[in-house]
Amino acid sequence: MGNVTPQTGYRILPFGEAQDFVRAVFVAHGYSPEDAADIADVILRADLYGIESHGVQRLMRYHRALAVEKTARFDAVPETIRETPISAVVDAHDALGQLVGIRAMRLAIAKAKEHGIGTVAVRGSSHFGIAGYYTRMAVEEDLLGYCTTNSEPILVPTFARQAMIGSNPIAIGMPADPTPFLFDAATTVVPRGKLEVRAKRNEPIPEGWAIDETGAVCTDPQRVITAILARRGGGILPLGGAGEEMSGHKGYGFGLFCDLLSAGFSGGPFSNHKKDDPTKSNTSHFFLAMDYGLFGDKADIRSRFSHFLQELRETPRAEGQSRIWIHGEKELESETHRRTEGIPANERTLDELRRIAADLGLPRPAFLAPSPA
Amino acid sequence: MGNVTPQTGYRILPFGEAQDFVRAVFVAHGYSPEDAADIADVILRADLYGIESHGVQRLMRYHRALAVEKTARFDAVPETIRETPISAVVDAHDALGQLVGIRAMRLAIAKAKEHGIGTVAVRGSSHFGIAGYYTRMAVEEDLLGYCTTNSEPILVPTFARQAMIGSNPIAIGMPADPTPFLFDAATTVVPRGKLEVRAKRNEPIPEGWAIDETGAVCTDPQRVITAILARRGGGILPLGGAGEEMSGHKGYGFGLFCDLLSAGFSGGPFSNHKKDDPTKSNTSHFFLAMDYGLFGDKADIRSRFSHFLQELRETPRAEGQSRIWIHGEKELESETHRRTEGIPANERTLDELRRIAADLGLPRPAFLAPSPA
Repeated sequence: MGNVTPQTGYRILPFGEAQDFVRAVFVAHGYSPEDAADIADVILRADLYGIESHGVQRLMRYHRALAVEKTARFDAVPETIRETPISAVVDAHDALGQLVGIRAMRLAIAKAKEHGIGTVAVRGSSHFGIAGYYTRMAVEEDLLGYCTTNSEPILVPTFARQAMIGSNPIAIGMPADPTPFLFDAATTVVPRGKLEVRAKRNEPIPEGWAIDETGAVCTDPQRVITAILARRGGGILPLGGAGEEMSGHKGYGFGLFCDLLSAGFSGGPFSNHKKDDPTKSNTSHFFLAMDYGLFGDKADIRSRFSHFLQELRETPRAEGQSRIWIHGEKELESETHRRTEGIPANERTLDELRRIAADLGLPRPAFLAPSPA
Repeated sequence: MGNVTPQTGYRILPFGEAQDFVRAVFVAHGYSPEDAADIADVILRADLYGIESHGVQRLMRYHRALAVEKTARFDAVPETIRETPISAVVDAHDALGQLVGIRAMRLAIAKAKEHGIGTVAVRGSSHFGIAGYYTRMAVEEDLLGYCTTNSEPILVPTFARQAMIGSNPIAIGMPADPTPFLFDAATTVVPRGKLEVRAKRNEPIPEGWAIDETGAVCTDPQRVITAILARRGGGILPLGGAGEEMSGHKGYGFGLFCDLLSAGFSGGPFSNHKKDDPTKSNTSHFFLAMDYGLFGDKADIRSRFSHFLQELRETPRAEGQSRIWIHGEKELESETHRRTEGIPANERTLDELRRIAADLGLPRPAFLAPSPA
């Protein structure tokens, strides 16, 4: 936090210029300025939060999905195929995940405001960015938010040697003061994006994150990514690691549950069948908003919860530690800083952005000028 | 599974006789035969499942809570203090957790059957045994079940050196064929009961489970338990372990969320304040039942989910592994076996059962005869 000297191989992009560029990319893909702004907001929120893996370093994936693979379509119109006062099922018909997610959470929020709880299961969508974006929407309406998604299989079930389940994050948001509780966690030890970032930096990954196609511990992120993409076996371990001694079966169970909520409830394919049809992303999501006023006076619940969070912050610290964090604090502090100071981007990511600009015939912004070195 | 020779220091109790004894204990404490049977069912379900930590090895704790510490009262009458069609808040007024849990989940189930979702937050309860007992009640009604509780602080937040949050399990149950998905996981690496069992066996615990009062890794389970009880610092690490490299902050976040659902929503004290009043257990729970028919044809959803579970079972196995498990399978297979073959009990647990029988003037059952050795 607070450092302005970028890591070697990184450049700092002024936030406003990066925002203009990402918006322009999606307008060039056919989206309205409003929709392009929504999509850019989800992508750049990740960079603001410091979650490089889900920020502009993924723009090439979205660009290719729209322009090359056609697994996402700018003119798709999501359809609500089943609805009750507290629930809905949406077929997104290959719309881009960010727009699908924003609309689905808006629907869940409207239901929660009217009936106390709103749940929306979505199929036929594509990668929607950080799950925590959508739970924060609920928090901004003074509601509890819960969100999950499935994704390409990267999680290896306990005692197995092949990936079967996605990184399948669970995001939870709850209003609190001075800052909300914003939890967002892949049910794998780490999401695939963390391996992508390490690979771009040519850095190894710690033992305990992943296994190779033979089932052996592997510290080479590119080897794991390649094995996953080729579906040769190998993958990322569930939260808790290999085997049961450190409770890796718990991460496996949480990941499995996310697939039930998203794919099981929406009728979409489970993670291991998402790519059976290579022409589709076939991603499923699940959104829940809940008015915690169901359980008592909202000001009282919020105040008691905020007090609990403050007590956690004030827990005696382990030796050498300077701070106990509440989930979301790092991200919100990073956001405040980076909105003013800019967001770091890897040189390889900048190359990708240059290629995207060239593909779309967009004027190259100043921050994409070749490196002086 | 399937072994009939008990581990050294263990004796096998015939299930029916153990059941009669546990029921008699609670009748002697003033409960009706029906209520005593419900309480015994929750406790013995843990032994049947192979979760020794939550079975009869905890009977002494319940006995003392009723007879000595009076933190649970047999004549307590739980009160619903707030209710909507899809939610309720219950003040259990110090009733025993098992009875409170059964009644609260019944209420959630009734609401889910009528309105699609039922949520019940409870305060003023006591330890309710395994959370997975209650989610299985929902599963038996063909509903999704979700349940959590708080408990005495044992979880040390990431970068801290003092326990602030309970073991705070998350249990999830979903109908499937041939067996349901029954997930039940402490949000710590392991629950406190696993340390108690190791201590009774005079066995060390693995590095990575717990830290002592100085914040150092500790493999002596009794030292950790003593430090926790004396609130001297130290405790069990969150799922994911120490620090952030293996994502211990995720287990910390899940545990914190359980406290929000149970204590935050019911108005009970958070884990770190449960024992502020030593005359009360002050445990909070949260129950949710959901009719997954909200999202489509139930037979279709159940069949697709069951197929996914079967594919997980058939994942290529890591070298040296004989089986990929679905959560709940080990427990259900153990239950089938142990109902016929009996449940193992540690000699120290048998001593506790003998003391309970003597305290209550109960005839000593045959399985409590002194060891022939």
